[in-house]
Amino acid sequence: MSGAVPGWQPSGDEIRAARERIKPFVIATPLLRCEPLDRQGRRVFIKPENLQRTGSFKVRGAFNAMASLEPAKKQEGPITYSSGNHAQALALAARELGFTERGQPYPCTVFMPEGASPLKVERTKALGAEVLFAGKTTEDRKHAALDLAQKTGRPVIPSYDDPRIVCGQGTLGVEIMDQWMGMPSRTRRLGLVATPLGGGGLLSGTAAALRARGFGGRIVGVEPQAGDDTKQSFAAGKRVEVPLPQTVCDGLMSVIPGEVTFPILQKCKAEAVAVSDEQVKAAAYWLLDTMKLLVEPSGAVAVAAWMSGAIAESPDQSTDEILDVVLLLSGGNADPAVVAGWK
Amino acid sequence: MSGAVPGWQPSGDEIRAARERIKPFVIATPLLRCEPLDRQGRRVFIKPENLQRTGSFKVRGAFNAMASLEPAKKQEGPITYSSGNHAQALALAARELGFTERGQPYPCTVFMPEGASPLKVERTKALGAEVLFAGKTTEDRKHAALDLAQKTGRPVIPSYDDPRIVCGQGTLGVEIMDQWMGMPSRTRRLGLVATPLGGGGLLSGTAAALRARGFGGRIVGVEPQAGDDTKQSFAAGKRVEVPLPQTVCDGLMSVIPGEVTFPILQKCKAEAVAVSDEQVKAAAYWLLDTMKLLVEPSGAVAVAAWMSGAIAESPDQSTDEILDVVLLLSGGNADPAVVAGWK
Repeated sequence: MSGAVPGWQPSGDEIRAARERIKPFVIATPLLRCEPLDRQGRRVFIKPENLQRTGSFKVRGAFNAMASLEPAKKQEGPITYSSGNHAQALALAARELGFTERGQPYPCTVFMPEGASPLKVERTKALGAEVLFAGKTTEDRKHAALDLAQKTGRPVIPSYDDPRIVCGQGTLGVEIMDQWMGMPSRTRRLGLVATPLGGGGLLSGTAAALRARGFGGRIVGVEPQAGDDTKQSFAAGKRVEVPLPQTVCDGLMSVIPGEVTFPILQKCKAEAVAVSDEQVKAAAYWLLDTMKLLVEPSGAVAVAAWMSGAIAESPDQSTDEILDVVLLLSGGNADPAVVAGWK
Repeated sequence: MSGAVPGWQPSGDEIRAARERIKPFVIATPLLRCEPLDRQGRRVFIKPENLQRTGSFKVRGAFNAMASLEPAKKQEGPITYSSGNHAQALALAARELGFTERGQPYPCTVFMPEGASPLKVERTKALGAEVLFAGKTTEDRKHAALDLAQKTGRPVIPSYDDPRIVCGQGTLGVEIMDQWMGMPSRTRRLGLVATPLGGGGLLSGTAAALRARGFGGRIVGVEPQAGDDTKQSFAAGKRVEVPLPQTVCDGLMSVIPGEVTFPILQKCKAEAVAVSDEQVKAAAYWLLDTMKLLVEPSGAVAVAAWMSGAIAESPDQSTDEILDVVLLLSGGNADPAVVAGWK
């Protein structure tokens, strides 16, 4: 948790400001119709952030956090601890905002676990970041990052539990709403938006943005069954910690919801549902074979939940309206051969 | 050739009419930035028609041809000969226009070669078409189709050499231009549009639409080296026939440019370049791994030509303008495991 007032929730204005800040640097990924998933009169759309720069939505939060820093802080260059998509996203933001503002990249340091995937190390370095190794657990890496920050005065930009990150990811809520409003058949109502759910940065930002726009439908986060910390936390009414999950969803291995993000999810009346690894693999293969999109396992959970019925939707008895559904695909950084093997 | 006046070229008005006709039935696929392909100051965009309905651009021509038929003709249901993407596209158009207009699909008959891929047969049948087998060559299938048409009075809708098809595919030229105009940095000029090139339906329609909009840049069709009939025809100044090509590009195995399409390509000053199967495989794998898009070999030839340098572009000496490039991906109907194996 970094700089957040307890109980803070992003306003529509804060998210709109983030959107203006990051607009030159991110792709407004399209909202695509996904007819084969239509069910019971529901019209389904997908939001493919696997087509985003660096292959995931994480650039939204990273660019917003970097661009929000005071000029002096920015010069020093950011530090983070992540072996996943946030590392590449922050490396890109440090490089490009540096070039924009002073003609050379800001230094960026990423702490990864000893034994991190060589591919991820290589891709992060290719974007200009320095990669350092520290221990095996998230706590080890976080400790090393905070230590370096204290010694150098450089800013730490964590991967989700941070208001600047939440506002950046929240730009997806604004974008989804704007794009959905531009679709034909305006006699319909948007009834449900579902996103992957790990630490909660994506879901909390998207939920706050949607509620700020007056969205009254369901907002659903999807977790792996092995790591359903948010689902358990909703049930308990407070943040619950679970053991480190064993799951194919390597981007959703959070053990406890964020301090910043969880209260936002509660206030926005978000829900959490869980899917099995088998359901995730089937969804990822289906997206590749039918929709022609390479999606990483963590990125395919919302589609897995919709296909498997984990998101239970019964025809609304109270209205004749036909509801639309948006499923967000968060990233595509998977080995094509692995996903192709899940036939 | 069907119903075309010799020397016919689609006007901007004809293509705009086609666009209005097909709008409710096709996806306006996005124009996506493709930074990793930027070169020598060129900014590259891709137009991913692999995300189109049935996985290829062919629905544009098929819906336009079906919707252009006189009501009595439509009732009879269309006939075609194709084992590829046009078969699925026409099956879908017959089904949906039927439902729109009379509550049940129009019958659709597709002639395929004996020994056609069971997957393609199955997918075409799944869209409601009747599949009949006739001989091994295109001439065999065409003969069977024309024979049935003569006996029944039903209309034949061929896959490319037909003005209605050319106008339908031409909607891509209009769409590319409109979408490019909406991009930031309007100090740039669109310098080059490249598409796959088989019989020439896609390229001739797109070229006519672009020229009608005043586009003065390069229009490039990309063929497999083994079947460069259009390249040879341009050199000879007339339609040249080549032997049936052996190539991984199963959608681009034309042996001679179309009677309708070739004169349009000449008038529009289109160019043809050729790529090797190895270049195509490398491009298809790269699109999957980096851009997260599953593209069939025939669909990846324009990217292959750009990546390999087959589209030679030297910095323009005569101007300081920076030029943009659009590469069209025509379809995504490939086995994911096969493309993933081309690492």
